[in-house]
Amino acid sequence: MPHDLRENEQIVQLAPASDGLVRFIGRIRTPWTDRADCPRQERIDGHDCRIELDPDWQDAPDGLDAYGTVEVLYRMDQSRRDLTHQSPRSDGCTLGTFALRSPTRPDLIGTSIMRLPRIEGGVPHVQGLNCGDGTPLIDRKPDRCAFTPNAPEQPGDIQTV
Amino acid sequence: MPHDLRENEQIVQLAPASDGLVRFIGRIRTPWTDRADCPRQERIDGHDCRIELDPDWQDAPDGLDAYGTVEVLYRMDQSRRDLTHQSPRSDGCTLGTFALRSPTRPDLIGTSIMRLPRIEGGVPHVQGLNCGDGTPLIDRKPDRCAFTPNAPEQPGDIQTV
Repeated sequence: MPHDLRENEQIVQLAPASDGLVRFIGRIRTPWTDRADCPRQERIDGHDCRIELDPDWQDAPDGLDAYGTVEVLYRMDQSRRDLTHQSPRSDGCTLGTFALRSPTRPDLIGTSIMRLPRIEGGVPHVQGLNCGDGTPLIDRKPDRCAFTPNAPEQPGDIQTV
Repeated sequence: MPHDLRENEQIVQLAPASDGLVRFIGRIRTPWTDRADCPRQERIDGHDCRIELDPDWQDAPDGLDAYGTVEVLYRMDQSRRDLTHQSPRSDGCTLGTFALRSPTRPDLIGTSIMRLPRIEGGVPHVQGLNCGDGTPLIDRKPDRCAFTPNAPEQPGDIQTV
Protein backbone atom coordinates (compact mmCIF):
# COMPACT_ATOMS: atom_id res chain seq x y z
CA MET A 1 0.00 0.00 0.00
CA PRO A 2 1.52 3.37 -0.95
CA HIS A 3 1.89 5.89 1.82
CA ASP A 4 1.92 9.41 0.43
CA LEU A 5 3.75 11.84 2.64
CA ARG A 6 1.57 14.00 4.84
CA GLU A 7 2.39 17.54 5.92
CA ASN A 8 5.67 17.68 7.88
CA GLU A 9 6.38 13.96 7.63
CA GLN A 10 10.02 13.19 6.95
CA ILE A 11 11.86 10.27 5.42
CA VAL A 12 15.43 9.04 5.31
CA GLN A 13 17.24 7.99 2.15
CA LEU A 14 17.85 4.26 2.52
CA ALA A 15 20.02 1.79 0.70
CA PRO A 16 18.31 -1.59 0.23
CA ALA A 17 17.93 -3.51 3.49
CA SER A 18 20.56 -6.19 3.68
CA ASP A 19 21.71 -6.90 7.20
CA GLY A 20 19.68 -9.98 7.96
CA LEU A 21 17.35 -12.41 6.26
CA VAL A 22 13.97 -13.30 7.66
CA ARG A 23 12.17 -16.52 6.90
CA PHE A 24 8.40 -16.47 7.15
CA ILE A 25 7.38 -19.52 9.18
CA GLY A 26 3.66 -19.36 8.46
CA ARG A 27 0.68 -17.07 8.01
CA ILE A 28 -1.76 -15.34 10.33
CA ARG A 29 -5.45 -15.77 9.61
CA THR A 30 -7.71 -12.91 10.72
CA PRO A 31 -11.14 -11.57 9.72
CA TRP A 32 -9.67 -8.44 8.09
CA THR A 33 -8.84 -8.65 4.39
CA ASP A 34 -8.35 -4.89 3.94
CA ARG A 35 -5.85 -2.92 5.98
CA ALA A 36 -8.37 -0.10 6.32
CA ASP A 37 -10.66 -2.41 8.28
CA CYS A 38 -8.12 -3.61 10.84
CA PRO A 39 -8.35 -2.44 14.44
CA ARG A 40 -5.60 0.09 15.09
CA GLN A 41 -4.63 -1.72 18.27
CA GLU A 42 -4.91 -5.29 19.45
CA ARG A 43 -7.71 -6.21 21.86
CA ILE A 44 -7.36 -9.14 24.20
CA ASP A 45 -11.13 -9.69 23.90
CA GLY A 46 -10.93 -9.47 20.12
CA HIS A 47 -11.82 -11.79 17.27
CA ASP A 48 -10.74 -15.39 16.90
CA CYS A 49 -7.61 -15.58 14.73
CA ARG A 50 -5.29 -18.45 13.82
CA ILE A 51 -1.51 -18.76 13.85
CA GLU A 52 -0.69 -21.24 11.08
CA LEU A 53 2.81 -22.68 10.78
CA ASP A 54 4.25 -23.85 7.46
CA PRO A 55 4.72 -27.63 7.17
CA ASP A 56 8.45 -27.42 8.03
CA TRP A 57 7.61 -26.26 11.54
CA GLN A 58 4.43 -28.13 12.32
CA ASP A 59 6.25 -30.57 14.56
CA ALA A 60 7.60 -27.80 16.75
CA PRO A 61 4.83 -26.35 18.91
CA ASP A 62 4.98 -28.98 21.68
CA GLY A 63 4.41 -27.26 24.98
CA LEU A 64 2.77 -24.04 23.84
CA ASP A 65 -0.48 -25.23 25.39
CA ALA A 66 1.05 -24.70 28.82
CA TYR A 67 0.64 -20.96 28.33
CA GLY A 68 -2.50 -18.84 28.38
CA THR A 69 -0.86 -15.97 26.52
CA VAL A 70 1.53 -15.96 23.60
CA GLU A 71 3.68 -13.36 21.83
CA VAL A 72 3.59 -13.24 18.03
CA LEU A 73 5.91 -11.44 15.60
CA TYR A 74 4.82 -10.73 12.05
CA ARG A 75 5.70 -8.68 9.01
CA MET A 76 3.54 -5.66 8.26
CA ASP A 77 4.41 -5.96 4.63
CA GLN A 78 2.15 -3.26 3.20
CA SER A 79 4.01 -0.36 4.79
CA ARG A 80 6.93 1.83 3.78
CA ARG A 81 10.20 1.71 5.70
CA ASP A 82 11.82 5.11 5.35
CA LEU A 83 9.69 7.45 7.46
CA THR A 84 11.47 9.09 10.38
CA HIS A 85 8.69 11.53 11.38
CA GLN A 86 5.08 10.47 10.99
CA SER A 87 1.83 12.40 11.15
CA PRO A 88 -0.78 9.86 12.34
CA ARG A 89 -3.61 12.39 12.18
CA SER A 90 -2.51 13.95 8.87
CA ASP A 91 -2.58 17.31 10.59
CA GLY A 92 1.05 18.38 10.21
CA CYS A 93 1.92 17.35 13.78
CA THR A 94 4.57 14.63 13.74
CA LEU A 95 6.06 12.09 16.10
CA GLY A 96 9.23 10.07 15.63
CA THR A 97 8.75 6.59 14.18
CA PHE A 98 10.28 5.02 17.31
CA ALA A 99 7.78 6.82 19.52
CA LEU A 100 4.90 5.14 17.65
CA ARG A 101 3.66 1.58 17.24
CA SER A 102 2.70 2.39 13.65
CA PRO A 103 3.20 -0.39 11.06
CA THR A 104 5.33 2.11 9.10
CA ARG A 105 8.83 1.42 10.45
CA PRO A 106 12.22 0.35 9.10
CA ASP A 107 11.86 -3.40 9.57
CA LEU A 108 8.08 -3.70 9.37
CA ILE A 109 7.95 -6.07 12.33
CA GLY A 110 4.88 -6.05 14.51
CA THR A 111 4.52 -7.72 17.89
CA SER A 112 1.35 -8.66 19.73
CA ILE A 113 0.59 -10.35 23.02
CA MET A 114 -2.54 -12.41 22.74
CA ARG A 115 -4.77 -14.77 24.62
CA LEU A 116 -4.47 -18.41 23.60
CA PRO A 117 -7.84 -19.95 24.42
CA ARG A 118 -7.26 -23.20 22.56
CA ILE A 119 -5.21 -25.21 20.05
CA GLU A 120 -7.26 -27.11 17.45
CA GLY A 121 -5.62 -29.64 15.18
CA GLY A 122 -2.23 -28.23 16.14
CA VAL A 123 -3.28 -24.69 15.17
CA PRO A 124 -3.34 -22.07 17.96
CA HIS A 125 -6.48 -19.96 18.04
CA VAL A 126 -5.81 -16.58 19.58
CA GLN A 127 -7.48 -13.30 20.50
CA GLY A 128 -5.64 -9.99 20.45
CA LEU A 129 -4.38 -9.57 16.88
CA ASN A 130 -5.06 -6.59 14.67
CA CYS A 131 -3.19 -7.43 11.47
CA GLY A 132 -4.63 -8.29 8.08
CA ASP A 133 -5.50 -11.80 6.89
CA GLY A 134 -2.51 -13.61 5.41
CA THR A 135 0.09 -11.54 7.26
CA PRO A 136 3.46 -13.35 7.18
CA LEU A 137 4.34 -14.96 10.52
CA ILE A 138 7.90 -14.49 11.82
CA ASP A 139 7.80 -16.00 15.29
CA ARG A 140 5.65 -17.04 18.20
CA LYS A 141 6.75 -17.61 21.77
CA PRO A 142 5.34 -17.71 25.28
CA ASP A 143 4.51 -14.36 26.85
CA ARG A 144 7.55 -13.24 28.85
CA CYS A 145 5.47 -12.71 31.99
CA ALA A 146 4.42 -16.36 32.07
CA PHE A 147 7.75 -17.86 31.03
CA THR A 148 10.51 -19.12 33.31
CA PRO A 149 13.77 -20.19 31.69
CA ASN A 150 14.43 -23.90 31.63
CA ALA A 151 18.15 -23.63 31.01
CA PRO A 152 20.77 -23.78 33.76
CA GLU A 153 21.74 -20.54 35.50
CA GLN A 154 24.28 -18.17 33.97
CA PRO A 155 26.44 -15.64 35.83
CA GLY A 156 24.30 -12.69 34.72
CA ASP A 157 21.23 -14.19 36.44
CA ILE A 158 22.59 -13.30 39.84
CA GLN A 159 24.62 -10.24 38.92
CA THR A 160 23.65 -7.13 40.83
CA VAL A 161 24.16 -3.50 39.86
CA MET B 1 28.35 -19.65 18.44
CA PRO B 2 27.94 -23.30 17.44
CA HIS B 3 25.16 -25.19 19.11
CA ASP B 4 25.89 -28.90 19.13
CA LEU B 5 22.77 -31.00 19.25
CA ARG B 6 21.85 -32.37 22.67
CA GLU B 7 20.08 -35.65 23.29
CA ASN B 8 16.67 -35.76 21.55
CA GLU B 9 16.94 -32.29 20.06
CA GLN B 10 15.63 -32.12 16.50
CA ILE B 11 16.25 -29.85 13.57
CA VAL B 12 14.57 -29.11 10.29
CA GLN B 13 16.38 -28.97 6.93
CA LEU B 14 16.19 -25.37 5.81
CA ALA B 15 16.83 -23.61 2.56
CA PRO B 16 18.54 -20.23 3.03
CA ALA B 17 16.25 -17.63 4.58
CA SER B 18 14.99 -15.33 1.88
CA ASP B 19 11.51 -14.01 2.59
CA GLY B 20 12.35 -10.62 3.99
CA LEU B 21 15.31 -8.36 4.54
CA VAL B 22 16.05 -6.79 7.88
CA ARG B 23 18.06 -3.64 8.29
CA PHE B 24 19.86 -3.16 11.58
CA ILE B 25 19.09 0.34 12.79
CA GLY B 26 21.67 0.47 15.57
CA ARG B 27 23.40 -1.48 18.32
CA ILE B 28 22.58 -2.36 21.90
CA ARG B 29 25.24 -1.66 24.50
CA THR B 30 25.20 -3.92 27.55
CA PRO B 31 27.72 -5.02 30.20
CA TRP B 32 27.92 -8.58 28.82
CA THR B 33 30.58 -9.29 26.20
CA ASP B 34 30.26 -13.08 26.40
CA ARG B 35 26.97 -14.84 25.77
CA ALA B 36 27.71 -17.20 28.67
CA ASP B 37 27.58 -14.26 31.08
CA CYS B 38 24.22 -12.85 29.98
CA PRO B 39 21.20 -13.18 32.26
CA ARG B 40 18.86 -15.83 30.87
CA GLN B 41 15.92 -13.47 31.27
CA GLU B 42 15.54 -9.73 31.33
CA ARG B 43 15.14 -7.99 34.70
CA ILE B 44 13.36 -4.68 34.98
CA ASP B 45 15.72 -3.77 37.85
CA GLY B 46 18.73 -4.83 35.79
CA HIS B 47 21.86 -3.10 34.59
CA ASP B 48 22.00 0.19 32.72
CA CYS B 49 22.14 -0.49 28.96
CA ARG B 50 21.98 1.84 25.95
CA ILE B 51 19.93 1.68 22.75
CA GLU B 52 22.08 3.40 20.12
CA LEU B 53 20.61 4.31 16.74
CA ASP B 54 22.71 4.55 13.60
CA PRO B 55 23.18 8.11 12.25
CA ASP B 56 20.42 7.63 9.62
CA TRP B 57 17.82 7.38 12.38
CA GLN B 58 19.09 9.73 15.02
CA ASP B 59 16.54 12.36 14.12
CA ALA B 60 13.65 9.98 14.71
CA PRO B 61 13.21 9.38 18.44
CA ASP B 62 11.10 12.51 19.15
CA GLY B 63 8.47 11.62 21.68
CA LEU B 64 9.93 8.45 23.16
CA ASP B 65 10.57 10.33 26.41
CA ALA B 66 6.81 10.38 26.99
CA TYR B 67 6.99 6.70 27.89
CA GLY B 68 8.41 5.01 30.98
CA THR B 69 8.73 1.64 29.28
CA VAL B 70 9.83 0.72 25.80
CA GLU B 71 9.84 -2.45 23.67
CA VAL B 72 13.01 -3.37 21.83
CA LEU B 73 13.57 -5.91 19.05
CA TYR B 74 17.03 -7.24 18.30
CA ARG B 75 18.84 -9.99 16.44
CA MET B 76 20.28 -12.82 18.53
CA ASP B 77 22.87 -13.42 15.88
CA GLN B 78 24.96 -16.06 17.62
CA SER B 79 22.29 -18.76 17.51
CA ARG B 80 21.31 -21.45 15.05
CA ARG B 81 17.96 -21.28 13.26
CA ASP B 82 16.97 -24.85 12.46
CA LEU B 83 16.07 -26.42 15.83
CA THR B 84 12.49 -27.59 16.18
CA HIS B 85 12.87 -29.40 19.52
CA GLN B 86 15.27 -28.04 22.11
CA SER B 87 16.67 -29.48 25.31
CA PRO B 88 17.40 -26.47 27.54
CA ARG B 89 18.76 -28.61 30.37
CA SER B 90 20.74 -30.96 28.10
CA ASP B 91 18.92 -33.85 29.77
CA GLY B 92 17.15 -35.39 26.79
CA CYS B 93 13.84 -33.71 27.66
CA THR B 94 12.76 -31.41 24.84
CA LEU B 95 10.29 -28.61 24.25
CA GLY B 96 9.22 -27.13 20.94
CA THR B 97 11.08 -24.02 19.83
CA PHE B 98 7.83 -22.02 19.81
CA ALA B 99 7.15 -22.98 23.43
CA LEU B 100 10.44 -21.42 24.50
CA ARG B 101 11.88 -17.92 24.55
CA SER B 102 15.28 -19.36 23.68
CA PRO B 103 17.52 -17.28 21.36
CA THR B 104 17.70 -20.38 19.13
CA ARG B 105 14.76 -19.85 16.75
CA PRO B 106 14.17 -19.48 13.02
CA ASP B 107 14.43 -15.73 12.74
CA LEU B 108 16.68 -15.02 15.73
CA ILE B 109 14.56 -12.07 16.83
CA GLY B 110 14.41 -11.26 20.52
CA THR B 111 11.98 -8.87 22.16
CA SER B 112 12.27 -7.17 25.54
CA ILE B 113 10.18 -4.73 27.49
CA MET B 114 12.34 -2.42 29.51
CA ARG B 115 12.27 0.52 31.82
CA LEU B 116 13.38 3.80 30.27
CA PRO B 117 14.71 5.87 33.16
CA ARG B 118 16.35 8.55 31.02
CA ILE B 119 17.55 9.71 27.61
CA GLU B 120 21.05 11.24 27.59
CA GLY B 121 22.35 13.04 24.52
CA GLY B 122 19.55 11.45 22.49
CA VAL B 123 20.50 7.93 23.61
CA PRO B 124 17.91 6.01 25.66
CA HIS B 125 19.29 4.35 28.77
CA VAL B 126 17.24 1.32 29.73
CA GLN B 127 16.99 -1.46 32.29
CA GLY B 128 15.64 -4.89 31.46
CA LEU B 129 17.86 -6.21 28.67
CA ASN B 130 19.73 -9.50 28.74
CA CYS B 131 21.48 -9.60 25.37
CA GLY B 132 25.19 -9.33 24.66
CA ASP B 133 27.05 -6.09 24.02
CA GLY B 134 26.90 -5.01 20.38
CA THR B 135 23.69 -6.92 19.61
CA PRO B 136 22.14 -5.59 16.37
CA LEU B 137 19.08 -3.42 16.99
CA ILE B 138 16.02 -4.02 14.80
CA ASP B 139 13.37 -1.78 16.33
CA ARG B 140 12.22 0.10 19.38
CA LYS B 141 8.74 1.32 20.16
CA PRO B 142 6.58 2.34 23.11
CA ASP B 143 5.34 -0.47 25.33
CA ARG B 144 1.90 -1.50 24.06
CA CYS B 145 0.36 -1.08 27.52
CA ALA B 146 1.28 2.61 27.64
CA PHE B 147 0.50 3.42 24.01
CA THR B 148 -2.73 4.84 22.60
CA PRO B 149 -3.01 5.12 18.82
CA ASN B 150 -2.86 8.65 17.43
CA ALA B 151 -4.40 7.78 14.10
CA PRO B 152 -8.09 8.21 13.27
CA GLU B 153 -10.45 5.33 14.06
CA GLN B 154 -10.82 2.40 11.68
CA PRO B 155 -13.85 0.09 11.37
CA GLY B 156 -12.10 -2.74 13.23
CA ASP B 157 -11.70 -0.57 16.32
CA ILE B 158 -15.38 -0.85 17.10
CA GLN B 159 -16.06 -4.29 15.60
CA THR B 160 -17.52 -6.76 18.07
CA VAL B 161 -17.43 -10.53 17.96
